Amino acid sequence: MPAKVLLPDSPVDDAALNLVARLPTTQLPGLIDEAWLARLGDADVMRLAVLLARKSYEEGGCPIGAVIIDNSTRRIVGKGHNTLVQDGDPYNHGETSAIRDAGRRDFSRATLFTSLSPCDVCAMLVVMRGFSRLVVGDVTNAAGNEALIRDRGVTVDILEDPMGIALYARFRNERPELDLEDWKGLAAVNQANPPK
Amino acid sequence: MPAKVLLPDSPVDDAALNLVARLPTTQLPGLIDEAWLARLGDADVMRLAVLLARKSYEEGGCPIGAVIIDNSTRRIVGKGHNTLVQDGDPYNHGETSAIRDAGRRDFSRATLFTSLSPCDVCAMLVVMRGFSRLVVGDVTNAAGNEALIRDRGVTVDILEDPMGIALYARFRNERPELDLEDWKGLAAVNQANPPK
Repeated sequence: MPAKVLLPDSPVDDAALNLVARLPTTQLPGLIDEAWLARLGDADVMRLAVLLARKSYEEGGCPIGAVIIDNSTRRIVGKGHNTLVQDGDPYNHGETSAIRDAGRRDFSRATLFTSLSPCDVCAMLVVMRGFSRLVVGDVTNAAGNEALIRDRGVTVDILEDPMGIALYARFRNERPELDLEDWKGLAAVNQANPPK
Repeated sequence: MPAKVLLPDSPVDDAALNLVARLPTTQLPGLIDEAWLARLGDADVMRLAVLLARKSYEEGGCPIGAVIIDNSTRRIVGKGHNTLVQDGDPYNHGETSAIRDAGRRDFSRATLFTSLSPCDVCAMLVVMRGFSRLVVGDVTNAAGNEALIRDRGVTVDILEDPMGIALYARFRNERPELDLEDWKGLAAVNQANPPK
């Protein structure tokens, strides 16, 4: 067994959460003490989603991240970020990426944290995969599907993270076309600005 | 340049389409003559989607395939099949898989062929990526989102393929739980049959 890098009483701060964001999910049990993970509150898990968003931004991609935890153990079972730019994938949003990372699980025992309010497709995905709970970290830059998701039986909580909100606002200001492509596809970008 | 394996006058039959199904999309221009591709009618492209579904079935996966063509050139720009089993991915449906394969494109100039009527998530994805047209190969085993997609501005045509319908019916009969997991997630499977 390798030595744990986060011990039961290690600080819960951005540096530690950033390490967790960058480790493959499968590596977490060997390197992060379970007692440290158990100390993460909802705001810490949301910050983890935001640090995943920041990782994507640093890679030139769209800054949206997501984390899935088991409701009873609070273990992280999946995490990821948007990969429109990184993989050239027209639909691998933060939520989709975290769900793919989590694999074939019963999500009725899990909570999905997303750094940004879900798009129409992800809203349907959260419902159809049967999540018990969704926590949304930014309804300032985008919003609208919370009511629909709630109506379909998912508990929806808003827990805004100022770092995530500032990051997304900055991205949208810097890369408005990329923001539009991620939301409505290149079709919408070309419609707004017809190619010469 | 390697020699083309399908020439302008090669037969358009299941053997040829099965080869196209199994070649990576990026390899098609080098190996398949453009004049042969131009001879493919809508029913042939749908059969290609069904042969992708059959490939997935042969791999132990869910038999749903999809193909995306450019409306003007009729070139195949993306194709794929469900990979729930193959990749352990809770949401990589035929449509999603073909979109990922096609990459960052303006889908308002493209048609998506799917061997099975789209689920609620894929219906929204087809709309949000701005496809001009959707062709559905099986509304016998599943149906329901065609009207919603049409209402959102996408042309929707039904072009049933008997081979695809028989294949999906056989799969559902053999693997009812896998069919349910693919549609509504493991949460729905466990709700129907609580784990001991």
